[in-house]
Amino acid sequence: MPRGVFITLEGLDGSGKTTQIKRLAAWLTRRGQEPVLLRQPGSTATGDRIREILLTSHSVAIAPMAEMALMFADRAQAIAEVIQPALDAGRIVVCDRFTDSTEAYQGGGRELGSKVVLDMHRLICGGLQPDLTLLLLPGFAASLNRARRRNDRVEAETGSSEGRFESEKDAFFRRAWEKYREIAAREPDRVVLIEGDLSIDEVHEQIVEAVSERIVTSPKSA
Amino acid sequence: MPRGVFITLEGLDGSGKTTQIKRLAAWLTRRGQEPVLLRQPGSTATGDRIREILLTSHSVAIAPMAEMALMFADRAQAIAEVIQPALDAGRIVVCDRFTDSTEAYQGGGRELGSKVVLDMHRLICGGLQPDLTLLLLPGFAASLNRARRRNDRVEAETGSSEGRFESEKDAFFRRAWEKYREIAAREPDRVVLIEGDLSIDEVHEQIVEAVSERIVTSPKSA
Repeated sequence: MPRGVFITLEGLDGSGKTTQIKRLAAWLTRRGQEPVLLRQPGSTATGDRIREILLTSHSVAIAPMAEMALMFADRAQAIAEVIQPALDAGRIVVCDRFTDSTEAYQGGGRELGSKVVLDMHRLICGGLQPDLTLLLLPGFAASLNRARRRNDRVEAETGSSEGRFESEKDAFFRRAWEKYREIAAREPDRVVLIEGDLSIDEVHEQIVEAVSERIVTSPKSA
Repeated sequence: MPRGVFITLEGLDGSGKTTQIKRLAAWLTRRGQEPVLLRQPGSTATGDRIREILLTSHSVAIAPMAEMALMFADRAQAIAEVIQPALDAGRIVVCDRFTDSTEAYQGGGRELGSKVVLDMHRLICGGLQPDLTLLLLPGFAASLNRARRRNDRVEAETGSSEGRFESEKDAFFRRAWEKYREIAAREPDRVVLIEGDLSIDEVHEQIVEAVSERIVTSPKSA
């Protein structure tokens, strides 16, 4: 049975993942592929309900360990219901966030550490790893500005607020940003780090280059 | 700092846990204790929302691994928000279901096996174990009848149904029942197995005996 290709996009909030996934999907479609797109948390009936809990989690003070377990519950459902069947059918799957996000946000940001996240990944995801991870990570100052803007907008829309001082939020994003860099350094074969404060077109070009090199020209999706 | 006492009640659906917890709580109260009562899943704001997802999980076909992760998300929240603070304050905590339920139902019933459940427990619950577990487990025929009746009623109330043949449900409960017996045999110091088709009063007497012997007469709650 053919196995498809599993691509994930990663980065802090506001890093432009959504825009880039649309561009990448259009590019893949022009090449005759029909990519399966999804985001985490969400994208299944159960996942959407888990996402709702997580989006209001700041206001009800969810425990970091519970937050992490919810992320993996969502992921387990997405793998069983969407990702694995699509890969088994030879499709290209493009996922907005995967375990790297949990390692960056819960492991780094919430200071649970990488080990518990990676152990959970092995238990829950049965060793499923992306073939390619595109990490959109401008320098910290630019990343922080984007994440802050996005975060403020989401809090205004959902009425939720962490109720923390700005300096505490900045430290949270700093830890997540650093954890992302640590992941990229640890797994250079899987993770392509797209740095610098680039334009949408420039980021798209780098993504297409990485995908072309590693995936579309490889025999498995020829 | 004093540490309280952590008691869990376990058993198949319809085994009478709820009734026995009320009786035990009344008995403890008469002895001057103020037990903290909770059930899993549920008993926190986040846990109640997780419980809602799980109760309708049959109708939306939740993946067994996702179901298990949701159970532990609920448990992590209950530990952080209720159980650990109560134990730290020296209280007696009585919990309707804990990790043994996950091992019996998801590990046994859903055939995930014990290992993944126990590994999750170590990761998520940080080694927190009940001081005493009261396992209400009549013989299989009686257990099955009670579980079936309860299950049919819940399905009628919630409009959910596994849509399985009765024989498949029976096999599910058989695996859960056997896993409970396996746990009791493996951890005799912690788990008191209350067998036989006993009356409510008889079960209560056995519970009081176990609690008196192991807990209330011990120095830690003297």
